[in-house]
Amino acid sequence: MTGTAERALAGLGIELPTPAAPIANYVGFVRSGRLLFVSGQLCLVDGKPVATGKLGAEVSVEQGQEAARVCAINILAQVKAALGDLDKVIRVVRLCGYVAAAPSFLDCPKVVNGASDLMVEVFGEKGRHARTAFGVAVLPGDAAVEVDAIFEVA
Amino acid sequence: MTGTAERALAGLGIELPTPAAPIANYVGFVRSGRLLFVSGQLCLVDGKPVATGKLGAEVSVEQGQEAARVCAINILAQVKAALGDLDKVIRVVRLCGYVAAAPSFLDCPKVVNGASDLMVEVFGEKGRHARTAFGVAVLPGDAAVEVDAIFEVA
Amino acid sequence: MTGTAERALAGLGIELPTPAAPIANYVGFVRSGRLLFVSGQLCLVDGKPVATGKLGAEVSVEQGQEAARVCAINILAQVKAALGDLDKVIRVVRLCGYVAAAPSFLDCPKVVNGASDLMVEVFGEKGRHARTAFGVAVLPGDAAVEVDAIFEVA
Repeated sequence: MTGTAERALAGLGIELPTPAAPIANYVGFVRSGRLLFVSGQLCLVDGKPVATGKLGAEVSVEQGQEAARVCAINILAQVKAALGDLDKVIRVVRLCGYVAAAPSFLDCPKVVNGASDLMVEVFGEKGRHARTAFGVAVLPGDAAVEVDAIFEVA
Repeated sequence: MTGTAERALAGLGIELPTPAAPIANYVGFVRSGRLLFVSGQLCLVDGKPVATGKLGAEVSVEQGQEAARVCAINILAQVKAALGDLDKVIRVVRLCGYVAAAPSFLDCPKVVNGASDLMVEVFGEKGRHARTAFGVAVLPGDAAVEVDAIFEVA
Repeated sequence: MTGTAERALAGLGIELPTPAAPIANYVGFVRSGRLLFVSGQLCLVDGKPVATGKLGAEVSVEQGQEAARVCAINILAQVKAALGDLDKVIRVVRLCGYVAAAPSFLDCPKVVNGASDLMVEVFGEKGRHARTAFGVAVLPGDAAVEVDAIFEVA
């Protein structure tokens, strides 16, 4: 029997990717008590960024939103690897959205909504989270967006 | 009977604003166990930034400190909304201060002290917190400062 | 009798510095339950940055890695001050690596590996952590790298 979040994900037509194997001395997630900390996830599909460059320059708000959604999908892939079942998530506690941005770009929150919206599409009310969003100088591999997360888990 | 933190706030002549209603799929705070995570709060009064632009360019250190204090007031407004009573705070655990800064600006800690100082003015010793401060490329709406926080609560 | 982490540290020839005294209303660490939050630690030795400027400009990847390792040593000094004994660490939960970077610098993860690697050298498997790394506009005092951390402790 499949739970609510898993069904929501299927209804959205999203198949979670295999989370990238760690390539250094860090890992995709660490659980401590009821909190699950997920490492910063870039907007990668098959190992390549779906958007590179800076918001306010080469990357449009719409492209940034899609990139943030991809980050969120990669976060969910880590959660699935950690818990085996997304329905063990009690609450999305916090997202932090890192937007590679020109110093004149003012709409980081709109971009990060691409990640926030997916959390609510998948988890409903328990997908609503605390959030911080801001513009960074540059992200790994010139990716346009990175997002990390904290979950409360059963 | 009013508790210590509430009295300290009144003594400082600070009236907490109504926290901004969430305008997207995130919320102002999430509690998980004894930890309260507060979303990044901009230096907004009545919905408008008290300082816009970059430290090291349009914004002075003094203006930045005042902006950080406004962020901290907005954080306390979220805590009040979450707990009903600031005296349910056991400890200010961590602040993170995001300063919109020109790449040549070296004094982010001085700016963020505007937020740290208010926490100690309101909570005394239990207001002392772990902290990270750094210069970001740009903040939402060109605000000069953003601060988020984690509290331990009763 | 010295525990594993303390012996590993000695084997690496690392003597932990006295953590810098707080110069403002924040502190080096706060413990809440089983989580220990360590403030952002700059790449300081004897109060001076071992590398200043930006990655992708004045600072090489190798210099950045060494700077990140110094940040990690300063984190361990805070943990030692907090717990008295590094072997009370159950798990390194999360590191966040802040790299002062030119907007064209793509290798922040390589830089932050300098901190991640030390955690695994000292703590072994329990040193593997969740991590986020990104490029910031500027760090306090023009330091090249800052790292903060969350530990699970006994």
